[in-house]
Amino acid sequence: MISLEQIRSISKATPSKIIFLVLDGLGGLPHPDPGVTELETAVTPNLDMLARDGVCGLSVIVSAGITPGSAPGHLAIFGYDPLIPQHQIGRGVLGALGIGLELRDGDAAARGNFCTVDDGGLVTDRRAGRISSEKCAELCDMLTGMSVDDVDISVHPEKEHRFVAIFRGKGLSSALSDSDPQRVGLAPLDIQALSPGADTAASVANKFIAAARERLDGLQPANMVLLRGFAKYPPEVPRMDEVFKLNPAAVASYPMYRGLARVVGMHVLDTGTTIEEEITTVVENYDVYDFFFIHVKGTDSAGEDGDFDRKVKVIEEVDAALPLLTELEPDVIVVTGDHSTPALLKGHSWHPVPFLLYSKYCRRDGVEEFSERACAGGALGNFPAVDIMPLALANALKLDKYGA
Amino acid sequence: MISLEQIRSISKATPSKIIFLVLDGLGGLPHPDPGVTELETAVTPNLDMLARDGVCGLSVIVSAGITPGSAPGHLAIFGYDPLIPQHQIGRGVLGALGIGLELRDGDAAARGNFCTVDDGGLVTDRRAGRISSEKCAELCDMLTGMSVDDVDISVHPEKEHRFVAIFRGKGLSSALSDSDPQRVGLAPLDIQALSPGADTAASVANKFIAAARERLDGLQPANMVLLRGFAKYPPEVPRMDEVFKLNPAAVASYPMYRGLARVVGMHVLDTGTTIEEEITTVVENYDVYDFFFIHVKGTDSAGEDGDFDRKVKVIEEVDAALPLLTELEPDVIVVTGDHSTPALLKGHSWHPVPFLLYSKYCRRDGVEEFSERACAGGALGNFPAVDIMPLALANALKLDKYGA
Repeated sequence: MISLEQIRSISKATPSKIIFLVLDGLGGLPHPDPGVTELETAVTPNLDMLARDGVCGLSVIVSAGITPGSAPGHLAIFGYDPLIPQHQIGRGVLGALGIGLELRDGDAAARGNFCTVDDGGLVTDRRAGRISSEKCAELCDMLTGMSVDDVDISVHPEKEHRFVAIFRGKGLSSALSDSDPQRVGLAPLDIQALSPGADTAASVANKFIAAARERLDGLQPANMVLLRGFAKYPPEVPRMDEVFKLNPAAVASYPMYRGLARVVGMHVLDTGTTIEEEITTVVENYDVYDFFFIHVKGTDSAGEDGDFDRKVKVIEEVDAALPLLTELEPDVIVVTGDHSTPALLKGHSWHPVPFLLYSKYCRRDGVEEFSERACAGGALGNFPAVDIMPLALANALKLDKYGA
Repeated sequence: MISLEQIRSISKATPSKIIFLVLDGLGGLPHPDPGVTELETAVTPNLDMLARDGVCGLSVIVSAGITPGSAPGHLAIFGYDPLIPQHQIGRGVLGALGIGLELRDGDAAARGNFCTVDDGGLVTDRRAGRISSEKCAELCDMLTGMSVDDVDISVHPEKEHRFVAIFRGKGLSSALSDSDPQRVGLAPLDIQALSPGADTAASVANKFIAAARERLDGLQPANMVLLRGFAKYPPEVPRMDEVFKLNPAAVASYPMYRGLARVVGMHVLDTGTTIEEEITTVVENYDVYDFFFIHVKGTDSAGEDGDFDRKVKVIEEVDAALPLLTELEPDVIVVTGDHSTPALLKGHSWHPVPFLLYSKYCRRDGVEEFSERACAGGALGNFPAVDIMPLALANALKLDKYGA
């Protein structure tokens, strides 16, 4: 497989424009009754026309049989092999991105749980009885804003007993073990430095935990914290401007995808929550950038809820809005997803994802509609998602010849 | 490509069951006259129904154009890339497995030939005139049971001039050169240690050869032995219970496949020699295991014999017995082969192998029958055989999401 370093050596900036429309969780499975998928059920004249004029396939996001999480799914379609260690984003940073925290270079982030310990200090409930999200926010307010040895620590509520802790200071390392013992009946573990330079960070984290315990003392059921998944920001993923010579923008309403876009160096634009608002944002900024990642969350949310009909409806909404994008006459349009989320499975799945690419130079195939079954017969066949970016760049004439 | 280590990190034990039906040498080539293959000639209503309800493709076992031996073929479909050095099984061990020897951990095994040397000790016939298998057994009886420096050596006949020697003792290394000079007119080579720890093993092997020469002295034509392919048992292949969290069972009547199954950690069940007996063994043990490898040898044997019609007949027998398996309602059924053995070629071949997978969640394609040509149009297309296990596990819901 070609490396990012090799792609960097042949990519070039040009005025051509790429629109990258991602319907989260696009792929589906047939509803048992009519025997067709969400995408096959949806009435999508505009997507079908693009599929007819373009080249299609089914994209294998991570590897055959592997169900991608949101981060590996997006990294793969952005051109970064999610199986490579440098492209893996630590859990602490993912947690922060998921709730929309704006991390700064050098920050370290950890996932946290409020938990219950007994008088002897042993964990009796790792989730503190799943306290409410409101209670969690109150407790985070009690802990946030500490400063330990010149490191500022902020604490931010997620859902129920979960929170994210951000450590901001000079020379912080994230090579730290977890304090979460993963079982009840044990004491929280001391956080240990996992590399020589991490001693200071370990000491800061342990002092924070001790201070948190004091502040929570006497409360029930949440009288202690557990930390895990320390990770440094930014991750080691190279930026899209460096590797692909793009000036990329992201149009996404959910924090996680805005954060992932920022990780790969996209400019994250202000936008609304509807598909029309997202597309309007693209139209308004069309002259400024040469790559637009548009993220549609509704397909995935409906799939996760097992709501076949709502997923159909979101796909139809996207189809109805599509002419606003095609009227811009971008050099390349890609429509695909970051993984499948069949309503039948109520969750992400391993199934390869319908993919279409339209450009003047795409060598169209015989596919007549945008669907799982039609894409399976497309000219790209089953192909790895990391090939999507090189294909998009090539069709935008943004890649030089490899070798003389 | 995803590593076994990465799969290990997301695999989980569940009650779901996988049946893995392997028709050895399944793939074929068209008979010149009717222009269809063995599988296309066979009347297979049950396989066709599974293909219709499942997802199909052609599995590339090792790599395009590469004809797999039995060991790499099976390792690939069990999920182990046969091109990785740790997944290569030494010839000595393969020889022992092929004749059904039960090796113990720490044993070293070598392939051997009886040969002819002249009065000057130079090899004049590397195969001792291809002595009969009966003669070979007699000679093995003369050599077996020696003990050299606390290493017990047993000698077991294969076919004609070939035998297997097992070295059993403490701390044996198999990093040894061959004694077979591979050409007549040369003296047998001294066996050399290929790594620092192998000196003892080299000395034992050389002493055994010297003793064998003494015992065979004066006989004709077999008056000497040549050894090659020293290998240690067990090979380094990780076990299926560790990597895939399976409790796997093997139903195979031929020693080689029983041995290969044992190498990857399967429980090898007692069974008969017919397809019905094999399937009965699965039915009787269905509650105990969650993965059943069923090996059908007849397809390969017929192909090797160039017997097109007999291969057709074996496929039809399997088809007739298939309902006994589908009635068990396993969560996943895979039907495929470990390589092609076209009757036309009278041997293994490089052609990709028809593959079908049925599960409730398989996203069926438009394939209407189980055949080489129909599978070529399946949704899986041409795909690497090492993807089979992740696909089977995914469809049995035995894999967690990769990444958050």
